[in-house]
Amino acid sequence: MILLFTDYGSADPYSGLMRAAIWAHAPDVAIVDLLHEAPSFNTRASAHLLSAMSACFPIGSVCVAVVDPGVGSARSAVVMHADEKWYVGPDNGLLSVVAGRALQSELWRIDWRPEYLSDSFHGRDLFAPIAAWIDRGAFPHSKLSEIERLNIGLDYSDLAEVIYIDHYGNIMTGMRAAQIQRNAQFLFGSSTIEFARVFSDGLSGRPFWYKNSLGLVEFALNGASAALFLGAQVGDQFELYLPD
Amino acid sequence: MILLFTDYGSADPYSGLMRAAIWAHAPDVAIVDLLHEAPSFNTRASAHLLSAMSACFPIGSVCVAVVDPGVGSARSAVVMHADEKWYVGPDNGLLSVVAGRALQSELWRIDWRPEYLSDSFHGRDLFAPIAAWIDRGAFPHSKLSEIERLNIGLDYSDLAEVIYIDHYGNIMTGMRAAQIQRNAQFLFGSSTIEFARVFSDGLSGRPFWYKNSLGLVEFALNGASAALFLGAQVGDQFELYLPD
Amino acid sequence: MILLFTDYGSADPYSGLMRAAIWAHAPDVAIVDLLHEAPSFNTRASAHLLSAMSACFPIGSVCVAVVDPGVGSARSAVVMHADEKWYVGPDNGLLSVVAGRALQSELWRIDWRPEYLSDSFHGRDLFAPIAAWIDRGAFPHSKLSEIERLNIGLDYSDLAEVIYIDHYGNIMTGMRAAQIQRNAQFLFGSSTIEFARVFSDGLSGRPFWYKNSLGLVEFALNGASAALFLGAQVGDQFELYLPD
Repeated sequence: MILLFTDYGSADPYSGLMRAAIWAHAPDVAIVDLLHEAPSFNTRASAHLLSAMSACFPIGSVCVAVVDPGVGSARSAVVMHADEKWYVGPDNGLLSVVAGRALQSELWRIDWRPEYLSDSFHGRDLFAPIAAWIDRGAFPHSKLSEIERLNIGLDYSDLAEVIYIDHYGNIMTGMRAAQIQRNAQFLFGSSTIEFARVFSDGLSGRPFWYKNSLGLVEFALNGASAALFLGAQVGDQFELYLPD
Repeated sequence: MILLFTDYGSADPYSGLMRAAIWAHAPDVAIVDLLHEAPSFNTRASAHLLSAMSACFPIGSVCVAVVDPGVGSARSAVVMHADEKWYVGPDNGLLSVVAGRALQSELWRIDWRPEYLSDSFHGRDLFAPIAAWIDRGAFPHSKLSEIERLNIGLDYSDLAEVIYIDHYGNIMTGMRAAQIQRNAQFLFGSSTIEFARVFSDGLSGRPFWYKNSLGLVEFALNGASAALFLGAQVGDQFELYLPD
Repeated sequence: MILLFTDYGSADPYSGLMRAAIWAHAPDVAIVDLLHEAPSFNTRASAHLLSAMSACFPIGSVCVAVVDPGVGSARSAVVMHADEKWYVGPDNGLLSVVAGRALQSELWRIDWRPEYLSDSFHGRDLFAPIAAWIDRGAFPHSKLSEIERLNIGLDYSDLAEVIYIDHYGNIMTGMRAAQIQRNAQFLFGSSTIEFARVFSDGLSGRPFWYKNSLGLVEFALNGASAALFLGAQVGDQFELYLPD
């Protein structure tokens, strides 16, 4: 299975063109459009989102991850094998949260360049064939060089920032909920946000936090948009407050 | 074939995560993203839309239907076999229009709970594996209890309300067109809407009604947005008027 | 492989309904959602966009192309084999830029009508089964009549107009970049647009042009929306200026 995680836009043709390129190299591969609305100009938020989602990837699957404002510049391209899952993408920080949290990982730089490489669409021209070969079990050793570490490594500890806002207006954060007690509160702007287990427990007109399905702290509002209510945007910061 | 009918948002990651979960249980299943923009806070409109679309589902196919604002609360989860098609989803009214109109149907409550069940994403954790097993022909008898009827049954007669607005601005209603004469008019706000067979027959600048491809009465405007013109929103009501 | 190029809307149910119809006739076909946001009321822009994308289609693939405001009227429906790729769609100009630029092409009118043909959704009812049969290798000779040329033929030379704007705000044009020198400038409204090879070469706050991944001239802005900056919309015209 190949999973696509990009900022290509769910309405634009780029994800379809990448899919066609993958199938040209590996006709029977199952491809999942996971997300094509990753935050374009916020590699850090995207890196934390990718890390949270990676828990859902099947063992042995290949994720093509592309949030790549520097495409065509000197940034390098990499293959990563982390905790038995594969990742293909730019070496610009996007893979570094997964890498930092992995118990076991291996890394390769992609030296190969295809006959035609556009300056702006490495997803289609470079990452798609590499991912297809890996998924088919034809690991392209001769096209790669093993490396010790990524060039760009972001801080991979929990991030007290908004990393994604969904169409309901729910606000995903870069904080993993597993370690956070239910009496914890979050201070977002002038609002204090307390815990509720499920949406129907949320008091009307008052945002709450809960552990979302990716294991992250998420701010929500029962039957309405927490993002509108709080005026939240990707990249906004907040504080954790633990009452005595 | 598995068809996905949800309010998960076509741009958000939830449909992809559900697809990955289905394929984890049934690797070769064909999955169709039918609709991920069902009206979130209007189970009744979604139920009528699902019923209209179900005419297009192949015999033996499985539809995962999720519009589920009460996820994580006490509402129950069900499997339905209606007129030789399968449905998996919450027992909150969403399946009740299909059920009410079916010539033949059977119902089961889902007793099984997976090892990990998130509070907010039963589509991925509960409905996806059940649908995968049914599609593979491994009906999960031991995980279900047959029941007599749904807990929540909505009125399944024609609904004189807006149930969906598409990106052209065309307005789908909950009224089935088969029984409605072509001289019928609809009163929407202060507008009177007459019949036209196809878009190019519609008079410029004047909304018309026609039988859409799902068999429903739809209000449209030739080359423009009827929804903008009429100020229509999902849930708006209107009246049928039959001239002498 | 079947590729879908339509204006059906990426969030609406029409593309899923067409996919289900294709799979009903050809269960194992790989289907790519290439684009469902082709410019609805601008067949010419859509025709140039389709032509540019067709370079990415695999040999032997089938593209269902539907931008069809006149659906249900007297316009005819066609199958085209152009440079070893198949196209199925309306004869309203949409296929004419591909046709005009093809080195070799054959054309057929679709005479067949299915038992049930809706007035508004020929993609599902007419084009889907035809495409499925062609892809399966069961060319439907008896349902077609060979024709000499399309009824509607648009000018297929380069088009100095905006044909698509993506979610980054990048502006695709109908001009092929291969023949255009790098010292060329474009005059768009009151702005003069010069060349840059990649986004990171673009001067901050100043739009540039580059050869995009489809081979077209594209206007962009490093880290921001060129469309917002220039106030551009699909159909806007501009001029090519070649300094001495």
